[in-house]
Amino acid sequence: MPRGQVDPANIPDDGLTTRQRRMLPITAVHTGEGKGKSTAAFGMGLRAWNQGMNIGVFQFVKSAKWKVGEEAVFKRLNQLHELTGEGGAVEWHKMGEGWSWSKKAGTEEDHARDAAEGWQEIKRRINAQAHDMYILDEFTYPIKWGWIDVDDVVDTLKNRPGKQHIVMTGRDADPKLIEVTDLVTEMTKIKHPMDAGRKGQKGIEW
Amino acid sequence: MPRGQVDPANIPDDGLTTRQRRMLPITAVHTGEGKGKSTAAFGMGLRAWNQGMNIGVFQFVKSAKWKVGEEAVFKRLNQLHELTGEGGAVEWHKMGEGWSWSKKAGTEEDHARDAAEGWQEIKRRINAQAHDMYILDEFTYPIKWGWIDVDDVVDTLKNRPGKQHIVMTGRDADPKLIEVTDLVTEMTKIKHPMDAGRKGQKGIEW
Repeated sequence: MPRGQVDPANIPDDGLTTRQRRMLPITAVHTGEGKGKSTAAFGMGLRAWNQGMNIGVFQFVKSAKWKVGEEAVFKRLNQLHELTGEGGAVEWHKMGEGWSWSKKAGTEEDHARDAAEGWQEIKRRINAQAHDMYILDEFTYPIKWGWIDVDDVVDTLKNRPGKQHIVMTGRDADPKLIEVTDLVTEMTKIKHPMDAGRKGQKGIEW
Repeated sequence: MPRGQVDPANIPDDGLTTRQRRMLPITAVHTGEGKGKSTAAFGMGLRAWNQGMNIGVFQFVKSAKWKVGEEAVFKRLNQLHELTGEGGAVEWHKMGEGWSWSKKAGTEEDHARDAAEGWQEIKRRINAQAHDMYILDEFTYPIKWGWIDVDDVVDTLKNRPGKQHIVMTGRDADPKLIEVTDLVTEMTKIKHPMDAGRKGQKGIEW
């Protein structure tokens, strides 16, 4: 029966036990033109939450209109965690709202600076092991537009301490990012209702 | 700024307003060899829950080992709904546990019969408009194995009443299923850590 599992092509000679290999940090990229890149990243967040992981979500595209459902649920899951100790803590930051840790309000104009500052904050958090899982939503775009230095990202990911999982989404992922990422999935559009002139649906798109 | 949106290739001459077109029922299939098919389906469930939709999840592959995180969160969301009225109700049924509506315990042997019975129950529910969203997880396999008649599925989907969204996952989706589906996304594996001999990770795979 299909299980979605892949047989190891080889067993590494790394001296680790199976149990140790199950606790390795993962980097994942969801890319491609199709739907489901962010949706699958937030789905991964459900598993992490249920394992009690501390989750940081960082959204890199200004309008967060289409993610309100996920944001509402994860904020609710964070409240549950605070009230009952169940699951993990969740922080949700949006570039479009000037990042919540930023002293000043975000300006409409300087997206590039906002993105660069956001990345610097994430880098500080990674180096301080602030979260167990980072969801960097639509992170490929500020890299593509040159607002965030891909070499700095690669270096930070490669040398991050501890067991921090990093999940990144967006089209046109930089080849350097792909190279240092463990799990890369491409979402391809086969058919889309909007091609037939249909509109985004309540409960589906937001 | 990329928004993941697709410009309509054409505007249909269907006499509907934009508002009406936003309330049309959607069928979606997540297929392909890559990760994220089910994960993105459950991510879609978050949005639906937040819109107050009644969700029915039906898992068609016996071992549900890898979905415990999602199941735990959705059961919690259902409890929240029952306690506070927030979000929508969620029912979660697993073929491996003999379907919870079934009178008898599921036998280990007769997967084909379990799958066929599961589909009959789903069909009854669709015809009765029991849920707003159906997540039919790994539904393509019993179709592929001939346990569920694809023509019956196609007919049921095409003629379903009301505004019920149907999300289906699994590899090798039948071309007839693709044909009647509005939104088809293929998840393609570009890179997978298990190829390098790595194990499934706690908080990532389950």
